[in-house]
Amino acid sequence: MADKKNKKRALDDEDEDPQHVPFKKRLKPDQSILKTLQTLTKSVQSDSSSSNSKTLTLSDLSLSSSCREVSDLDLSDVQSSIERLAIRAAFSILSNQGFAYDVPLRTSANQLYVPELDRIVLKDKTSSRPFASLSTVRKTTITARILQLVHQLCLKSIHVTKRDLFYTDVKLFQDQAQSDAVLDDVACMIGCTRSNLNVVAAEKGVVVGRLVFSDNGDMIDCTKMGMGGKAIPPNIDRVGDMTSDALFILLVEKDAAYMRLAEDRFYNRFPCIIVTAKGQPDVATRLFLRKMKMELKLPVLALVDSDPYGLKILSVYGCGSKNMSYDSANLTTPDIKWLGVRPSDLDKYKIPEQCRLPMSEQDIKTGKDLLEEDFVKKNPGWVEELSLMVKTKQKAEIQALSTFGFQYLSEVYLPLKLQEQDWL
Amino acid sequence: MADKKNKKRALDDEDEDPQHVPFKKRLKPDQSILKTLQTLTKSVQSDSSSSNSKTLTLSDLSLSSSCREVSDLDLSDVQSSIERLAIRAAFSILSNQGFAYDVPLRTSANQLYVPELDRIVLKDKTSSRPFASLSTVRKTTITARILQLVHQLCLKSIHVTKRDLFYTDVKLFQDQAQSDAVLDDVACMIGCTRSNLNVVAAEKGVVVGRLVFSDNGDMIDCTKMGMGGKAIPPNIDRVGDMTSDALFILLVEKDAAYMRLAEDRFYNRFPCIIVTAKGQPDVATRLFLRKMKMELKLPVLALVDSDPYGLKILSVYGCGSKNMSYDSANLTTPDIKWLGVRPSDLDKYKIPEQCRLPMSEQDIKTGKDLLEEDFVKKNPGWVEELSLMVKTKQKAEIQALSTFGFQYLSEVYLPLKLQEQDWL
Repeated sequence: MADKKNKKRALDDEDEDPQHVPFKKRLKPDQSILKTLQTLTKSVQSDSSSSNSKTLTLSDLSLSSSCREVSDLDLSDVQSSIERLAIRAAFSILSNQGFAYDVPLRTSANQLYVPELDRIVLKDKTSSRPFASLSTVRKTTITARILQLVHQLCLKSIHVTKRDLFYTDVKLFQDQAQSDAVLDDVACMIGCTRSNLNVVAAEKGVVVGRLVFSDNGDMIDCTKMGMGGKAIPPNIDRVGDMTSDALFILLVEKDAAYMRLAEDRFYNRFPCIIVTAKGQPDVATRLFLRKMKMELKLPVLALVDSDPYGLKILSVYGCGSKNMSYDSANLTTPDIKWLGVRPSDLDKYKIPEQCRLPMSEQDIKTGKDLLEEDFVKKNPGWVEELSLMVKTKQKAEIQALSTFGFQYLSEVYLPLKLQEQDWL
Repeated sequence: MADKKNKKRALDDEDEDPQHVPFKKRLKPDQSILKTLQTLTKSVQSDSSSSNSKTLTLSDLSLSSSCREVSDLDLSDVQSSIERLAIRAAFSILSNQGFAYDVPLRTSANQLYVPELDRIVLKDKTSSRPFASLSTVRKTTITARILQLVHQLCLKSIHVTKRDLFYTDVKLFQDQAQSDAVLDDVACMIGCTRSNLNVVAAEKGVVVGRLVFSDNGDMIDCTKMGMGGKAIPPNIDRVGDMTSDALFILLVEKDAAYMRLAEDRFYNRFPCIIVTAKGQPDVATRLFLRKMKMELKLPVLALVDSDPYGLKILSVYGCGSKNMSYDSANLTTPDIKWLGVRPSDLDKYKIPEQCRLPMSEQDIKTGKDLLEEDFVKKNPGWVEELSLMVKTKQKAEIQALSTFGFQYLSEVYLPLKLQEQDWL
């Protein structure tokens, strides 16, 4: 009977779990946390106004291997590039030499992590794609077709998705992976970003909080977007006029955490912009985040799951993905801070055993692989955290914090993190 | 050489494919198409104002088997229902009888399609879930835990996702499918909708066009949402004050088609509200669509892929999914018209062979199964279209229309469909 009573009490106490009361007590008044944040914001803004490493470009570095980077081109530049490629092919055919495209190699052997820039770039190897060869005739035909379709988009000045592009010639492309891959080749050949080709990915991301911007001419106030937030537009070139009184950008991996913060209007307590791609970062969200960081000069704090994929997602925002390394300058956001949930938080915040999950063999392998990556190695704090994860073989999602109450994330965990400047 | 010339000419003509010119020519001035639409809108509005079949509820019908339906309950009603369940369990335990929950059966044997209502409803069979039984002790424990968690949500008046709920007790729930299933059980037990439990799904849908509504107190004008559109809020109970000067709602299956219409501001040429769930309809988008239809009394025209899944998606919006049949009254939108892309459109609009895809064995099976469903059978036009699909064994995505030019959808196909009132 005594035992039963104890059990009963334990249930009653759940709302005020004694394990996390100490954390709540450690919270200082918001005003003092805001001062901490103001210092952070100011340091980021003075960093970017002085001409320091942030303005470094590839050409400033004397690298042993030369690298290729694309630039942000106008639609008319893209159009004339395609026309030049077509004329060159025509001349080559008329002089009885057939034709071939020179296509930049996008394999990992042709990629390089540049620590000074903190991103992955593409080296300058290319391969020839001749029409008159059994092994490349198909790919050459696809390349010519994609060039022609992108040329149409330039003339009409409209945006389409990769899926639209695929559907213009299903029998030739066979599956979308083939037209998608050649699309990236074409961007490299022209030397522009994929967005410059007016081919955009389906939108996934949402943004809410202290941000005003224009989308295709309409002014959007993201403090007035209710709980749903504003869908991040697929075409960054129609986004502009960003203004904000936020102190930082909070980059959130998951939809659920985003929703919690949006419903609690966290951005009113701590002025910030909250953004999420709902999982894997898509190109539109990466471009949008970079644009915010560059125009508003705000620190970016990331809230991801405590697992290898959380860190991987952080690295894609920060240093780029291998697949799109030719465009890393436009897609990556430098200097993202890892706020949480970090492997060391699991013990620090006393996340109960039952909310931690054992890492699978694959998880552990991914974690170990990440430890070998340059962008992790250059941040000793990250190495320490990741090593701890691999050692304990435990992972946890952001939602694990819900075990202390559904609003623990917005009312205790994040405010305390900010107060203690606990980011890496 | 003559052959080569012909090929060259074919490429040049592609922008003005002679095959689709006749369709462009058939288009009347927009003003005349708008008149057609006004007639449609008026007929829908007079239908819903007269007390006809639309206001039918389950209790109006004398069905042979009695049915169970949930109603839209206040948070305080949900709270007191849970308290009553807890007290009943406590009394039962104190009188030495252990305790059990009576849980409505949600299997397909307990489901019924009601043609008068045009939706799937749940019959009233329940099963007992006793704590003192090896086979049900786990599920009973999970049920008690979910009831307790939902009670917390009621007290705090906040929304969480199914994922948050799962994470409050990973070791008990083991995987999310288990807590999700019991969550639906709990909604049935209480007799409310899942949204009433303040547990919402991650948001997926977006809306753009001639609609103004409030989201959590913020007024949103969907004509001023640029190309990205407004993310549909996860919690419908904070959505209200809908006004619109649209003539119809255009329900779009896919993101790519939505993007095309948003970029071209199709809603300014033909006043409408454009909405998509980006594939499978989620609960938030279904609730939002229903709310629009009910409050604005507008016709709903659906643009889906010409494959069995397109029709299936249409049916989920229209008649509900089997999984959520207990809540079909709140989740379904009556009288959705199948605008396109319909199997007969493939030949009618001369979609070239290369843009059609062969149906897989699974596709054909799904198509044949759909032909047996009551909600298809009651619409002879749908039966005819679906039979044609199964017979020709061909499918096509909305994007297939891109073969005539990327803007063929917004500039020719849809206007012509509207002009000819070509919906079923």
